[in-house]
Amino acid sequence: MDVAVIQMEPRILERDENLETMARLLGAVAHADIAVLPELCPCGYAFSSQDEVDAMAEDAYTGPTSSLLQDLARENEQVIACGYAERKGDAVYNAQLLVGPGGVMASYRKVHLFNTEKSFFSPGNAFYVSQPYKGIRMGLMVCFDWFFPESMRTLMLMGADIVLHSANLVLPYCPDAMVTRCLENRVYAVTSNRTGYERGLHFIGTSQITAPDGTIMRRLSREKEEAATACVDPCLAHDKHVTARNDILQDRAVGAYRL
Amino acid sequence: MDVAVIQMEPRILERDENLETMARLLGAVAHADIAVLPELCPCGYAFSSQDEVDAMAEDAYTGPTSSLLQDLARENEQVIACGYAERKGDAVYNAQLLVGPGGVMASYRKVHLFNTEKSFFSPGNAFYVSQPYKGIRMGLMVCFDWFFPESMRTLMLMGADIVLHSANLVLPYCPDAMVTRCLENRVYAVTSNRTGYERGLHFIGTSQITAPDGTIMRRLSREKEEAATACVDPCLAHDKHVTARNDILQDRAVGAYRL
Repeated sequence: MDVAVIQMEPRILERDENLETMARLLGAVAHADIAVLPELCPCGYAFSSQDEVDAMAEDAYTGPTSSLLQDLARENEQVIACGYAERKGDAVYNAQLLVGPGGVMASYRKVHLFNTEKSFFSPGNAFYVSQPYKGIRMGLMVCFDWFFPESMRTLMLMGADIVLHSANLVLPYCPDAMVTRCLENRVYAVTSNRTGYERGLHFIGTSQITAPDGTIMRRLSREKEEAATACVDPCLAHDKHVTARNDILQDRAVGAYRL
Repeated sequence: MDVAVIQMEPRILERDENLETMARLLGAVAHADIAVLPELCPCGYAFSSQDEVDAMAEDAYTGPTSSLLQDLARENEQVIACGYAERKGDAVYNAQLLVGPGGVMASYRKVHLFNTEKSFFSPGNAFYVSQPYKGIRMGLMVCFDWFFPESMRTLMLMGADIVLHSANLVLPYCPDAMVTRCLENRVYAVTSNRTGYERGLHFIGTSQITAPDGTIMRRLSREKEEAATACVDPCLAHDKHVTARNDILQDRAVGAYRL
């Protein structure tokens, strides 16, 4: 099956323009089975007030982002993961929407908030892994979640074969670190990052598709809006062997670990 | 304080020669407060029979390796970590001896055995972190333990500021991965690896000292027996902040994690 990583530069607070860009970039990978867009893609990242966040926050089922992605997922028979600001009751979450041909599958709320995000968003409290879709189970992860090894470990233990990772990375470490994250869990990862400069923050691009054996299958540029696809084989993620005698699931020494 | 990483090429089953080499290399870093030697340093790695292993296995307190290291640690007022084959009752462990000026401090038994090691060694079942020594707490780790994020996470949660990592690496991933391991735990690590070719196995050298901010402070050659030191500051490992608002200990979302 084919998975697509999409890199784009959202414009802060310009949702209509961003939704147009998302649709255009998704159009270039309409053949892919799964496509991943960056964190907070329809709204931008560097909010300066709660009013700005509130103006951009949307319902997971009826908001403009969800409506567009549901339409495209149905048209292209595709699963799409995309970061957005989710409004639920009084709370706003830095969330990631997962939609498929049958509609909304999940909204994952980022567990580990980064820096000033803590001023504007409530944290999530649970990870999510999908049922098998074309033989692959998708785990959801947003940006700074990667920094905590427990995030991808938990997704793998919940059954994820591939991690859909929407990001707005400013620190330089993640692309190289995803080699370790994929190796230690024997899963695929699609890290979709944004580019550009916004209100003092520079985002690093270098979106990436990483294989269970640590191979960097695709790495995008630092600056450009672009997309790439890679062919993934769920069987590779089902096989947890590092050597003939080391299955990393069976080798875990849970009794010796602290949580 | 100064820590030393020592890279050497043990000769399989040639303990006398290996102990001489260890003493010579330790002599070059006698000023360091802590020195780390590779895994299974006095005996070599690629055993072909249990008889070979049994012939090399030693007591943690009275064996020739322990005796030599206790003498040198006392003479140089130094802590030394070194991999060896530990005999305890009927069992043999791939272990790591920690000795200081006051004698034997610990023998850590490798929790995650790699490949054919499973034929010859019993696994350990507990990690170890020392009491503060000159203001720093040392966690012990042997080679393949690095692959499991729970190893260094557990050492950090037990209070380790620096991880003394004796290794016989054959896979290429560890040196780069230690950047992630140190970042995610905000600890130092000293990965002391062996070099050379032994009974079909090629060891990768590239021993390394890594800082809590992911900086590679020292990285040794792929082939040479050599040693290097770096100055480490325990305060850097005590501060778990990644940003002003992200303390990676406080930010852990334990309720969302699976073990």
